[in-house]
Parts: sequence; C-alpha cells; structure tokens
Amino acid sequence: MNCLEERILKDGVVKEGNILKVDSFLNHQMDVKLFDEMAKEYLKRFEGKEINKILTIEASGIGIASVVALRFGVPVVFAKKTQSVNLDGEMYTAEVESFTHKNINNVIVSKKFIGPEDKVLIIDDFLANGCALMGLIQIVSQAGATVAGIGIAIEKGFQPGGQIIRNLGYQLESLAIVESMDAKTGTVVFRQ
Amino acid sequence: MNCLEERILKDGVVKEGNILKVDSFLNHQMDVKLFDEMAKEYLKRFEGKEINKILTIEASGIGIASVVALRFGVPVVFAKKTQSVNLDGEMYTAEVESFTHKNINNVIVSKKFIGPEDKVLIIDDFLANGCALMGLIQIVSQAGATVAGIGIAIEKGFQPGGQIIRNLGYQLESLAIVESMDAKTGTVVFRQ
Repeated sequence: MNCLEERILKDGVVKEGNILKVDSFLNHQMDVKLFDEMAKEYLKRFEGKEINKILTIEASGIGIASVVALRFGVPVVFAKKTQSVNLDGEMYTAEVESFTHKNINNVIVSKKFIGPEDKVLIIDDFLANGCALMGLIQIVSQAGATVAGIGIAIEKGFQPGGQIIRNLGYQLESLAIVESMDAKTGTVVFRQ
Repeated sequence: MNCLEERILKDGVVKEGNILKVDSFLNHQMDVKLFDEMAKEYLKRFEGKEINKILTIEASGIGIASVVALRFGVPVVFAKKTQSVNLDGEMYTAEVESFTHKNINNVIVSKKFIGPEDKVLIIDDFLANGCALMGLIQIVSQAGATVAGIGIAIEKGFQPGGQIIRNLGYQLESLAIVESMDAKTGTVVFRQ
C-alpha cells in the first residue's frame, strides 16, 4: 500500500453516489509533503521516459503537477476551463463534458506553450469517466506533441475512463485505483 | 535585482492598458524552478514568523503557493471562486469585485481548513487593486486566524492595493514591484 492509499483510508470520506471526499489533503487543502512522496513514485514509474513538460488542468490538478514538476525538473502548463471559445487561433481547444456539473466546458492552452518537440506528462488529481483527460490528450495531439505518460492520483476503477485510456495504448499510472466504496460502512477497496 | 525581476525583464511582455504578460513563466506555463527560488526569498523575508498554513486563490496562485509550501513545510488551502454562495454555513465567504472581468465573485473556503489556531501566510501571483487579497484577508479574519504575512510575486506599484494593505499594518512582501511600464518601448521599471 502506498502513501496515497494509506492517506485515503485515514482521511478520505465516502459519500453516497460514489463520491470520495479527499478535500482535507488533495484538492482544497493540499498536503504538499504527500504530493512530494507521490512525485517520487511517478519518477520511478516513468523512469527512462523522456519528459520535458507537464500538462494539467485547473484548478485542482495544479498543486500536484507543480510539486511533480519540481521533482522532474520541468515546467508545468495548466489548461484553462472556459465557457467561451477563443477564436483567434492562438489557442488549442477541446470540448470537455462534465458528468459532475452536467455541462460542457472548453479546455484551452496557448499554442505558445506546447509544440511538436514536447514530450508531455499529463498529471491530474482524479480519473473517472476520463472526459477531462481526453481533452488534454486532444490538446497534446493538436500540438503535434507526444504524450509520454499520464499520472493520476485517484482513479475510480469502477468507471470506464481508465480502461478506455489504457486501451488507447497510453502508460497510465494511477497511484490509487478505487475498486469499490461503501458510504454506509465508509469502506474503500483498492485494486491490487 | 532578484530572480523574478530579472525574469520579467527577460520574458515579460508589456501590453497597452498597463498589462504585463508573464504567462510564459508565471501563470499559464509555470517555471517551478523559478518558484522555488522565490520560495527561498519568502523564507528569508518571513524568517522568525510562525507560519503553519498557506492560503491562496485559484487558479494561478496555486502553483506558486504549492512550491512555497514545500519550502515552509506546511499545507496549502486554496480559496475557490464561485458565483453562487453556499448558504449551508460550512464555508467562509467573501465578495470580490474583479476590475479585469467587471464582475463580482464569491471567494469561499471550507470552515474545516482554517481555524483560530492558524498563522496564515497568504500567497498570490499578482497584486493590483487588492480586491482578491482583501477577500482572502476577510476569510482569515472570519476564521479567527492570524495573517502572519502576505507574499506576492508581482505588485503593480502604480495601483493602490499595495499601499492599502501596508497601511492596514500587514507585512506585505512583493518580489517585484512595478513602478511603471511602457507598452511602446517594452520598458518595465521596478521600485528600488
């Protein structure tokens, strides 16, 4: 069991509707020492991969991505969510449907900051249906850059995102894959 | 001249309307090695202050705050911007008027993550009119916590925010205070 799985068992809260609240250490209050331990784990898992840039999405991916970037010694670019599309051609854009908020956002990244020479590690806090992640992959692809790998903190293994992304051939490393949760007992079971 | 001032002269772009674009290293693409140098500078400037938590605001404050928090060895809490107010009493809220976007946002922080025992260092990327910062100070005050200090990356010295905050008695440390800018020549003059 790694540091993130241990922390989820200690401080995560399971709510009805398959919601796992980790806002005390991951995505509202952020334990950056934990992030640094997670960064070391990503370093191991992506050893030997050429990576020169990290891409994440606002807002809750930024903290993890920044600490991971410090360990990898590379800059971070964060994609912005917006409801209006910038049509001046200076931005890569991808549409992302949110199942949580039942709306469609555009995810944008300035063309200045990703190009064909980039080997990109995508970092995000959660993976469930994979919608946000597919948007980020689209943007890397529009830039002609390469997805060197994908590092997720918590994957909901009972939702389809992880399998879809792995079937596409990407190296997807989720530090905690939740197989099942029970709001009544508060139990969380991780994939071995 | 410190590392941030040097970087602004090298890669900052002055645009009409007193806009300083620093999106290549500060708030879209983020140079986390620069952030770590900035963090060391904050450590010096707030030496001897008791600090157990960093508070910032989404989205562009999160990267800097996370790297600074790693140096200070404390967690980060980031305030969320929202247009709807959560009325269930679980959140501290403050109204923040944005001069850039001409609208009013609510800034919210869960009551779970700041309390009377906290000595808070507030970190943000920009200070101009001080609206966002006043919102964060209000939230710390609602929590009965103490503002131990305020660390800003870039202060627009020709706008009133910095003076207002200093007049209130806070230790405000801005790593680069822009005295004047000229979009025609691209010149940036820093306060000594």
